[in-house]
Amino acid sequence: MEIPTTMRASVLRGVRDLRVEERPVPTPGPDEVLIRIAAAAVSGGDVRLFSTGRLLGALLDAPLVLGRTAAGRIVAVGETVPESRIGELVALEPLHICRHCDQCRQGRYNLCERATFLGTPGCDGVFTEYIVHPADFAHPAPDTMGPEAACMVEPMSVGLAALQKAGVGAGSKVLIAGAGPIGLVTVAVAKALGAVEITITDLSGERLGRAARMGATTTFNMAEPGVVIPPSHFDAFIECSGSAAAIRRGFPAVRPAGHVVLVGRGGDEVALPVTLMQNREITVSGSFRYANQFPVAIAMAASGRVPYAELLGERVTLDDLAGALEPARSGTGVKPIVYP
Amino acid sequence: MEIPTTMRASVLRGVRDLRVEERPVPTPGPDEVLIRIAAAAVSGGDVRLFSTGRLLGALLDAPLVLGRTAAGRIVAVGETVPESRIGELVALEPLHICRHCDQCRQGRYNLCERATFLGTPGCDGVFTEYIVHPADFAHPAPDTMGPEAACMVEPMSVGLAALQKAGVGAGSKVLIAGAGPIGLVTVAVAKALGAVEITITDLSGERLGRAARMGATTTFNMAEPGVVIPPSHFDAFIECSGSAAAIRRGFPAVRPAGHVVLVGRGGDEVALPVTLMQNREITVSGSFRYANQFPVAIAMAASGRVPYAELLGERVTLDDLAGALEPARSGTGVKPIVYP
Amino acid sequence: MEIPTTMRASVLRGVRDLRVEERPVPTPGPDEVLIRIAAAAVSGGDVRLFSTGRLLGALLDAPLVLGRTAAGRIVAVGETVPESRIGELVALEPLHICRHCDQCRQGRYNLCERATFLGTPGCDGVFTEYIVHPADFAHPAPDTMGPEAACMVEPMSVGLAALQKAGVGAGSKVLIAGAGPIGLVTVAVAKALGAVEITITDLSGERLGRAARMGATTTFNMAEPGVVIPPSHFDAFIECSGSAAAIRRGFPAVRPAGHVVLVGRGGDEVALPVTLMQNREITVSGSFRYANQFPVAIAMAASGRVPYAELLGERVTLDDLAGALEPARSGTGVKPIVYP
Amino acid sequence: MEIPTTMRASVLRGVRDLRVEERPVPTPGPDEVLIRIAAAAVSGGDVRLFSTGRLLGALLDAPLVLGRTAAGRIVAVGETVPESRIGELVALEPLHICRHCDQCRQGRYNLCERATFLGTPGCDGVFTEYIVHPADFAHPAPDTMGPEAACMVEPMSVGLAALQKAGVGAGSKVLIAGAGPIGLVTVAVAKALGAVEITITDLSGERLGRAARMGATTTFNMAEPGVVIPPSHFDAFIECSGSAAAIRRGFPAVRPAGHVVLVGRGGDEVALPVTLMQNREITVSGSFRYANQFPVAIAMAASGRVPYAELLGERVTLDDLAGALEPARSGTGVKPIVYP
Repeated sequence: MEIPTTMRASVLRGVRDLRVEERPVPTPGPDEVLIRIAAAAVSGGDVRLFSTGRLLGALLDAPLVLGRTAAGRIVAVGETVPESRIGELVALEPLHICRHCDQCRQGRYNLCERATFLGTPGCDGVFTEYIVHPADFAHPAPDTMGPEAACMVEPMSVGLAALQKAGVGAGSKVLIAGAGPIGLVTVAVAKALGAVEITITDLSGERLGRAARMGATTTFNMAEPGVVIPPSHFDAFIECSGSAAAIRRGFPAVRPAGHVVLVGRGGDEVALPVTLMQNREITVSGSFRYANQFPVAIAMAASGRVPYAELLGERVTLDDLAGALEPARSGTGVKPIVYP
Repeated sequence: MEIPTTMRASVLRGVRDLRVEERPVPTPGPDEVLIRIAAAAVSGGDVRLFSTGRLLGALLDAPLVLGRTAAGRIVAVGETVPESRIGELVALEPLHICRHCDQCRQGRYNLCERATFLGTPGCDGVFTEYIVHPADFAHPAPDTMGPEAACMVEPMSVGLAALQKAGVGAGSKVLIAGAGPIGLVTVAVAKALGAVEITITDLSGERLGRAARMGATTTFNMAEPGVVIPPSHFDAFIECSGSAAAIRRGFPAVRPAGHVVLVGRGGDEVALPVTLMQNREITVSGSFRYANQFPVAIAMAASGRVPYAELLGERVTLDDLAGALEPARSGTGVKPIVYP
Repeated sequence: MEIPTTMRASVLRGVRDLRVEERPVPTPGPDEVLIRIAAAAVSGGDVRLFSTGRLLGALLDAPLVLGRTAAGRIVAVGETVPESRIGELVALEPLHICRHCDQCRQGRYNLCERATFLGTPGCDGVFTEYIVHPADFAHPAPDTMGPEAACMVEPMSVGLAALQKAGVGAGSKVLIAGAGPIGLVTVAVAKALGAVEITITDLSGERLGRAARMGATTTFNMAEPGVVIPPSHFDAFIECSGSAAAIRRGFPAVRPAGHVVLVGRGGDEVALPVTLMQNREITVSGSFRYANQFPVAIAMAASGRVPYAELLGERVTLDDLAGALEPARSGTGVKPIVYP
Repeated sequence: MEIPTTMRASVLRGVRDLRVEERPVPTPGPDEVLIRIAAAAVSGGDVRLFSTGRLLGALLDAPLVLGRTAAGRIVAVGETVPESRIGELVALEPLHICRHCDQCRQGRYNLCERATFLGTPGCDGVFTEYIVHPADFAHPAPDTMGPEAACMVEPMSVGLAALQKAGVGAGSKVLIAGAGPIGLVTVAVAKALGAVEITITDLSGERLGRAARMGATTTFNMAEPGVVIPPSHFDAFIECSGSAAAIRRGFPAVRPAGHVVLVGRGGDEVALPVTLMQNREITVSGSFRYANQFPVAIAMAASGRVPYAELLGERVTLDDLAGALEPARSGTGVKPIVYP
């Protein structure tokens, strides 16, 4: 296939100032590949950057190609990468890492202090036609998956990383708070891991309905009065809402020696029930993105165990992307898909 | 329900000398329950004891009620056990443990040196109408499971213990050697744990066919010439045949940092490829029965993820049990079911 | 040795109402031993019960023999316990457990819901001449240790359990908050585990001086202005003060992927820096007493690696015990020793 | 300090054909440093290559600078490395890795398939005046250590990696077979990790004497008749001799749920006691060099807990190095030190 010299990319120049611009198609260096984006998905981080110019403490201070979640096909390879990879469908793990620090060397590259993350200030993202990416972070997916399913590997990896930290596996009873995209995908991944009880809480009946279709065995609408989550019952509580109230209601539901994993972003400080944590020896971990989850998530998605279609929202192009980034339209628990 | 004072039990008095005898129905003590056996399954250990009078170094030197694998209903409870348990369908974890030694106190009660195992010399087994058993080793199963499925919890726990030692979970590639009952159930449990490649080897096409129906993604008939197991490919190799040849052929198939778990019983000493184990840092573990797997196995079976029906062999009563214990009839990879 | 029929015990009948009373010497049942207490140590829990009548939610509502920490010699054994144990010096693990619940069976007996703890409401303690105790919770100590060192095994086990939860070992950098007895013993155990940096914070220069003598490599007096704990530096933070301020100042000192273990008791709810926990993937655990630490702590103490003598406070008898239980006299970071 | 343009290096051109040759001093690239070697140590691999031209399946087919174990000072830095590192004393982790494969990304870089190892065919080693090395594999050591102690970090890391695989820590009982340099250093590291019993076996009284001086609590001379290693006693057995007889005698000494780690190189296949491994659920691992042990080993050595001086053999220069590489002179359990 002929590779053009220029491409179109969706560039954020300021709050709500998104423009499609022409950019040169980049060339892969050693250990890199050039990928033609087949599909991308809008994530909460994209929405926040678009509408506020801020994300996790970083500030939009220069034009930025948005987008972190994408799949595509390898169209060229750099030095040291086998030519046979050309044509592969790949899911992008949207990270650059230093590969030399203690965290990288110990396999926790998500904590690399020099890491840059696609679609965040300083590192152009995937809402574009072509992108150069580290070959080992372009994870091969079977053709049978298709690009939309391959786009779901990134959020699945977030859920998988959290569930692994909580030790969720066969027979587990899991409580999940928040039925946004990450909560929903966590439901599906928990089920694929063999969890037998998957209870989810949210304030929206619509989102809870979607959770049930994705595998939740029980749903609690916390907007209704008198809801009681079974106390001291769950092996793991995966907090995906970032709400202090949800955190507070979830802890007592965890059995002795159980795990809490905090995924949802909210206030910098939250009052946690320390005495309960001590009496039950509950372990609480933060979870930050993913490290070494993509290949597993791809295998899970490829095996058909994750009903990802429920997560797919409206289909847009680069030209009508801005609408899909409006907070008012997000929050439905699905991810708009971008076709560059 | 009226509990009778006597019951019928299948007693092994010598090699191939199995008799149905009348015995008093026992009374549960503190922390014990009385169970009416609803169904039992014949295991390899029963066959060996019946046909040789020996098992794992123990010698049949007194009349013994055979049988280790069973499900039933609680019909009476001893002191400290709540009456509400009467009527429960339970799967029997066929062990008595001392609860005071280092191994018990550390949660590895399968290694308790004072443990006795049902249906082995010194400890009467389950091929009987009633049995008294520790309340906590009578694991509640949902009524929807039925006694036959509940009988499959014991072999499932053997497979689950081995797979857990090997770290098998979502996305794992597993090689299993031997498609006898334990190999077959390990296939099914591996699938329920989220394994995406489950390759099994055996010498019998019939057993391999059953393995495929239970979830194996690839089968290799090692009786055929030229079979090549993919080298350095599998995350885990679960050896269920006890054959030195199978062990030797399986090791090179394990990837660096992979695991081998030896379940099948064979020669006391086997030549293992030590240099390969060193170069690839392969971990090899023995696995001995189960410790804390029953509740998980019940949850897995109850969720319908384990196609146990493939494992059920002929149905017999105590009166025609001897035939089902003949080695010639076993080795088909299914387990005869006994209805006392 | 002749065993008398009655003994003296220190009984708490109400707040600050401690009396020495005559009691019958008990007889050991199966799996139990009778121990003559050689030395006991006063712990913070004893002080709280004595001065407030409350402890961890329990209320003093009947006369109670106080005391949890003791060593002694076995003078009689119950059924199933070998006579050869008579004469052994033992450290008492001050617990009764059910041995049948899920937590017991999985080796986490400190979380047993039916557990009773010596010297707390409902379970008489060790400030007495003789006590009957489960044989496996009377841990043999070498005679070379002596009873005072054997008394230090209980607090050492608290520290060891916390340090193990935090993964502290050779080369670790550990931050400890609070130089009371548990903080101090945690310093010493961390050193014996191979930790190379042991930094401790407190508000008392005297306690910090003791910490330095026990192995702390750096001490910070937080009562002084301008103290800065090195940020993002420590592998583990063991919180032994229960102070919300200490918790808040300790978290930022933990490196990415580090551990926090909360040992000190304080407010039921404490505001924790959740965003920091997420960005650094910090793991926070509560720690509740000990499970399977006593034999290791004994081995460590016996090897002479723990300078326990620093922890020994005034020597008292049952008759003058009340004074040693006054809060005003505790809080010095040492433990009064009781000779019944 | 002035860096010269040429340097002297000890080049192996064939079996026992070692010559000192002039070579250009290399220039560090990005993420690299130039190190002036201060001291190096002779290892068993060097001796094997020198005397046989072979090592771990590799063949000496081109001139090779020998040597893997060294310490030195950084004298120049490449791009991205801070100038402030110039002057640092460093211990060399003698590896180049790809940093992109699955094993590297998961923190097990010792299993990287593209790894090259200093002083082995294809990768020049440390018996030279200067060497360029990856900055992150030049581990900073405190000046107080001195270069000889820093040379001991490499063998210490071998021992530490093995002991960590075996779960050795405070209170452990460890059996070590073989009192060569790796066995000896494993004794010392086990002690620093808090092991309380360290039993070592060998055929040489001299080597066993050295082991005792380095911390072994019991020594068994297996050349003497009637030696009995306590059965079912040790938590861990670290095999450092490579002898099939030692392996066979060590296994029965391991307690249920204990660990065996195979470090010593010997026959490709060894008969292992599989039934024992099953009955006791013993875990056996191979150990291959090290991954992420150097910083810990440096901290341990710097803390003075490892009596490395016992390991230092004769001091030689590049010019008289050949003699120190003769097998007849090695096998004493000490490491000759080379001063380039």
